[in-house]
Amino acid sequence: MRTLKVNLKENSYDIKIEKGILKSLGKEVKEVFNGEKIFIITDENVDKYYGTLAKNSLEEEGFKVEKLVLKPGEETKSFETMPKIYDRLLDFKLTRKDLIITLGGGVIGDIGGFSAASFLRSVPFIQVPTSLLAQVDSSVGGKVGVDLPRGKNLVGAFYQPKKVIIDPLVLETLEDRFFRDGMAEVIKYGFIRSKDLYLKLLKLDSKEKLMENIEDIIYECCDIKRTIVERDEKDLGERMVLNFGHTLGHAIEKYYGFNKYTHGEGVAIGMYNIAKLSEEKGLVSENYKDLIKEILIQNGLPFNVSIDEKEEIIEAISLDKKNMGSTLKVIIMKSLGNAEVYDTTIDFFR
Amino acid sequence: MRTLKVNLKENSYDIKIEKGILKSLGKEVKEVFNGEKIFIITDENVDKYYGTLAKNSLEEEGFKVEKLVLKPGEETKSFETMPKIYDRLLDFKLTRKDLIITLGGGVIGDIGGFSAASFLRSVPFIQVPTSLLAQVDSSVGGKVGVDLPRGKNLVGAFYQPKKVIIDPLVLETLEDRFFRDGMAEVIKYGFIRSKDLYLKLLKLDSKEKLMENIEDIIYECCDIKRTIVERDEKDLGERMVLNFGHTLGHAIEKYYGFNKYTHGEGVAIGMYNIAKLSEEKGLVSENYKDLIKEILIQNGLPFNVSIDEKEEIIEAISLDKKNMGSTLKVIIMKSLGNAEVYDTTIDFFR
Repeated sequence: MRTLKVNLKENSYDIKIEKGILKSLGKEVKEVFNGEKIFIITDENVDKYYGTLAKNSLEEEGFKVEKLVLKPGEETKSFETMPKIYDRLLDFKLTRKDLIITLGGGVIGDIGGFSAASFLRSVPFIQVPTSLLAQVDSSVGGKVGVDLPRGKNLVGAFYQPKKVIIDPLVLETLEDRFFRDGMAEVIKYGFIRSKDLYLKLLKLDSKEKLMENIEDIIYECCDIKRTIVERDEKDLGERMVLNFGHTLGHAIEKYYGFNKYTHGEGVAIGMYNIAKLSEEKGLVSENYKDLIKEILIQNGLPFNVSIDEKEEIIEAISLDKKNMGSTLKVIIMKSLGNAEVYDTTIDFFR
Repeated sequence: MRTLKVNLKENSYDIKIEKGILKSLGKEVKEVFNGEKIFIITDENVDKYYGTLAKNSLEEEGFKVEKLVLKPGEETKSFETMPKIYDRLLDFKLTRKDLIITLGGGVIGDIGGFSAASFLRSVPFIQVPTSLLAQVDSSVGGKVGVDLPRGKNLVGAFYQPKKVIIDPLVLETLEDRFFRDGMAEVIKYGFIRSKDLYLKLLKLDSKEKLMENIEDIIYECCDIKRTIVERDEKDLGERMVLNFGHTLGHAIEKYYGFNKYTHGEGVAIGMYNIAKLSEEKGLVSENYKDLIKEILIQNGLPFNVSIDEKEEIIEAISLDKKNMGSTLKVIIMKSLGNAEVYDTTIDFFR
């Protein structure tokens, strides 16, 4: 069992990582919440395996529990879904003294977290991430939000959970493609902040080996993210390095209508291509793109994509919320384990 | 000219009160904002008088300005309005380094503030309240939000502005009924925290006399609210005293479909009736209801209402977001200038 403390003054909280911890969800929640009602937000895929387990564990501790099961997938994470969630929260008469639990992947954490941030001007919430992507990335750091028809994550909040409870055992029921999806972010942490993590990952060349070390891996990723978030909670500086590969990744995801590539696959392609571009432009002295390629291939992730409509990808980049000003910030890996923010313009991609 | 500093650590800001300050809006904004673009959110009534003045003043300082003019009235402050605002913010390519200004009354401040809190997970904003109600109450303290079909202010955030700029001269163009609307909140501050303010108001028995002293009055109200908000930003304790008269007031507003009584009129009726009820129940040793009645009448505000459908009002109270738990908190004036939170149940109103 491993615990990390995210230090954000009055918004500080623990991240607890332990195989099988979901069985003790009620006890874990009780450590930080002494209210009456708990509203679980989850999706059909997660509910099928863990919905009853989670609800029972909470009810055993005496909480009054209601569960909302949403459809899985990015389409759910839209602004339009919010009124349905609010309606159910009102039916349950949830107050600001009660609690919301998000039990699911990134979509559930993001939309459930934004529900918590905005309902009654904020209700406490706990993240129980069930995908590798959510466990190492989206559940940590307080970014919550929803999509608008014109782009992803355009509406949301910085709203920290009261606790993050991570059970790596739930990854056993995660489809391989979504395990790989999360691995792209795991690999990213190596590139931006830890050569050691990169070297460790290189040795773990199967899902089995990765799962044997998964508590450690998740811990290391969360620890890197925690350190960055503590220094730049509101994403005004250093936190941007977490977007390594994301500018191009988001654009590719969007260009293909969010159904050809997963987020992680987009990021994988983005990381490789940004390394390639920064090499071509002479921004880095060494060549890292082959290192990136090697580990992506080992993890069953794509690294390149043939794009005919380059202009449309560039248009997608310029519409990304992070790039709406006249300058564009891209993340460059200066050396292995050390990424930096680089100020440029959209022409970087031309 | 008077300035108040609201001390909320990294979210601290100034409230500046000065007759005619709207003419120097650009300069005032420049003191706290060095970005490029400013998006003004206002309504048709306010725009008619002050839209061009505000925009020109900002443009003179070199800002790139866009203006969104919404329909006036509570109907505008609905969750459904949000996508229209987001759309315009996207058209303008507003980034997190730019600024939103809310130029208007409570509706504009609330929905504009929530737009700022939620767009791109938060964009800085400045409140320029133009109704008395907004100048003494809603623009101060960071409560922003929108209504759902099932109730007012059910969705929102605690999100502090970078500055509040108050020009009491704009009250000259405010309809008398809405001036009185704000006076209900002004009077409330006297009852909950300042006997002196109450005594002062008693002497100012016309709009003319009030307007002669309006800078002082606004300052004193904002100062009371500031003190309370600094001690309880998230509305978990003392801040609730600001709701004196509001539980019943909201219910009456709602019962009559938000068009028979203004917010202030609802609060006026609420204050009188809560005083009457607390006297009847022996919760206060003195009788304040006649003091309340006197000053409400002097300010052209209602104090009583004949309600046949008492049960429906009580149902409305129990659906108010603040009362959704099993307990109900009402605010009782223990002595003149000293209100407290009192824990009870919905039966208090039976």
